[in-house]
Amino acid sequence: MRHNLKRPIMTKVHNFSAGPAILPQEAIDEAIEGIRNFKGMGMSVVEISHRTPEWESTMAEAEALVRELLGVSDEYAVLFLQGGASTQFCMVPFNLMPENGKAAYLKTGTWASNAVKEAGFFGNVDVVASSEDKNFSYIPKNYTIPTDAAYFHITTNNTIFGTQMHSIPDSPVPLVADMSSDIFSKPVDVNKFSLIYAGAQKNMGPAGATLVIVKKSILGKTGRKIPTMMDYNVHIKGESMFNTPPVFAIYLSYLTLKWVKKMGGVAAMEKRNQEKGAVLYAEIDRNSLFQGTTAMEDRSLMNPTFIMTKPELEKDFLKFAEERHIVGIKGHRSVGGFRTSTYNALPLESVQFLVDTMKEFEQKHA
Amino acid sequence: MRHNLKRPIMTKVHNFSAGPAILPQEAIDEAIEGIRNFKGMGMSVVEISHRTPEWESTMAEAEALVRELLGVSDEYAVLFLQGGASTQFCMVPFNLMPENGKAAYLKTGTWASNAVKEAGFFGNVDVVASSEDKNFSYIPKNYTIPTDAAYFHITTNNTIFGTQMHSIPDSPVPLVADMSSDIFSKPVDVNKFSLIYAGAQKNMGPAGATLVIVKKSILGKTGRKIPTMMDYNVHIKGESMFNTPPVFAIYLSYLTLKWVKKMGGVAAMEKRNQEKGAVLYAEIDRNSLFQGTTAMEDRSLMNPTFIMTKPELEKDFLKFAEERHIVGIKGHRSVGGFRTSTYNALPLESVQFLVDTMKEFEQKHA
Repeated sequence: MRHNLKRPIMTKVHNFSAGPAILPQEAIDEAIEGIRNFKGMGMSVVEISHRTPEWESTMAEAEALVRELLGVSDEYAVLFLQGGASTQFCMVPFNLMPENGKAAYLKTGTWASNAVKEAGFFGNVDVVASSEDKNFSYIPKNYTIPTDAAYFHITTNNTIFGTQMHSIPDSPVPLVADMSSDIFSKPVDVNKFSLIYAGAQKNMGPAGATLVIVKKSILGKTGRKIPTMMDYNVHIKGESMFNTPPVFAIYLSYLTLKWVKKMGGVAAMEKRNQEKGAVLYAEIDRNSLFQGTTAMEDRSLMNPTFIMTKPELEKDFLKFAEERHIVGIKGHRSVGGFRTSTYNALPLESVQFLVDTMKEFEQKHA
Repeated sequence: MRHNLKRPIMTKVHNFSAGPAILPQEAIDEAIEGIRNFKGMGMSVVEISHRTPEWESTMAEAEALVRELLGVSDEYAVLFLQGGASTQFCMVPFNLMPENGKAAYLKTGTWASNAVKEAGFFGNVDVVASSEDKNFSYIPKNYTIPTDAAYFHITTNNTIFGTQMHSIPDSPVPLVADMSSDIFSKPVDVNKFSLIYAGAQKNMGPAGATLVIVKKSILGKTGRKIPTMMDYNVHIKGESMFNTPPVFAIYLSYLTLKWVKKMGGVAAMEKRNQEKGAVLYAEIDRNSLFQGTTAMEDRSLMNPTFIMTKPELEKDFLKFAEERHIVGIKGHRSVGGFRTSTYNALPLESVQFLVDTMKEFEQKHA
């Protein structure tokens, strides 16, 4: 739901989209101002050279915000790249897997499976555990990470299946994480990881930018030939401007992170997301028409998924919700039912409105 | 210079930036409206799923505009990707150069040299001609393209050095062109090419999108293993949405191309760019304080470059121009002097204002 609108919109829309997703209204308002006239330059942020001091200082502030919000030390480089997490699926093995080497992967969903497949182009992949046996409805536990793997790759939140890793394993080898759908949603101990990456388009900003946080000491060790644009060291040396960066996507990410900081940082986001999750999951469990699709202890606070106890009502509920301007809740075809993404920028009021709508629908069909 | 401003700006800025660069005011105004409320959805264009019909129709219209403006037949795929031309430097050999194969390159500047270097990771590179002997101040002619090369790669406009290919060679092998800095600035016979690519951030839109036009029949022939995101066929199959596309960069590119069409298409752009070039180059040649840096017949209509006959005056002229809100004219360090980019969206009035400023400076220093 939109509050304190500076812009007129026709209807109050409750945006539960899985990504691209709802962003903070004030970040969007500030982005519009930057498109109009960036820092009083009389030009749009999309029309200026990325080598101007005005842009370079924004890039530097964006990096500083990432470092501050997540507590990233100087041992790590912070990069803003292009190509999404899908490009990281190949950049990770390009940079970290030796020729004829081995990497370990935890297979927890569609994106994790894509990462596994991509790593297979580069060397041997040891899938240490998978939840594919139960349609990725849980996070595997009690697996052993091989000590001879170049790295161990996890996906901390599974957007499609609605599961989330609520604890991070101790890894005897460098830990690599795709955090596309839960970065900045809660505190994270970056020091447990050697590499973290995330497409921006959930909690961080619009589509078109990819965040990479990488421990510099793990790079340059594989002996592998790396195409220039796939080489993290090239982007570290170029300070994310080896080539022209995706200016607007970084700008709106920066404004979104400024909002996260203003709201109290990632600890405040976690509290906010826990509140939303508590309200929504309580209704999923209480309402006779709905049921969750995942193991209780692995429920995602980003993408709650649920189906209906009477599947024949799914189309009706979708229509019922859409008439109330609840959008983006149709579940991915791999799960069916509903996926109601509750990223940082989604207010509790939208979740409450969804819950009220679920109650109303239940009464109608009692 | 800004005309008919819907937005208030403090000063009239004449934006000669080399890229990111000036964009049409009405495209920017429409982009702001889309960020505010896209197609009346009550959400920003950056907040909606890329799988909504509203976005999918914009993607389809963007592709249709590219096809219409450049006359692209169904033999070719039109793709909107990420990563800039620098990523294409490796995607081209990944997709077109066989293992242990050979490709031919024309070396006409910094970016062409980077493309040559990158191709060297993949196989043998035959540099058929180079203008490096005279600091890339001309376009080589009378070279022979080897018939056993997998493809021949050219850079149609050299942003840094201010040269442009005013005729396209007949090639006995598939012709590949980096058109980053002159695409949509004039008509082009796409049928002469097997692959055209361009970073958006000159004539097409903001940074963050890359256009690829590729003849489908040349793909899938190398036997080379290609990482998923580097494979043109993956993006063709996914209709540029194999993964989340850079929504805003594509949107503003689409709006810019709509403006090109409304203004009369690429033929009208060529006329407009020729007028600007004639005015500016005439002054460079007339004014006793300035001189061009390139061969007359290879002068770029996108990035006129010039130096001063009294180099000690360069700093003064830069300051003199900047005081008059002429921005982005400092030459690249490889050439020195000035580079005054005159892309499609730059009005003739800005060029006239620059010329008047050059005249005024000459009088002051007579």
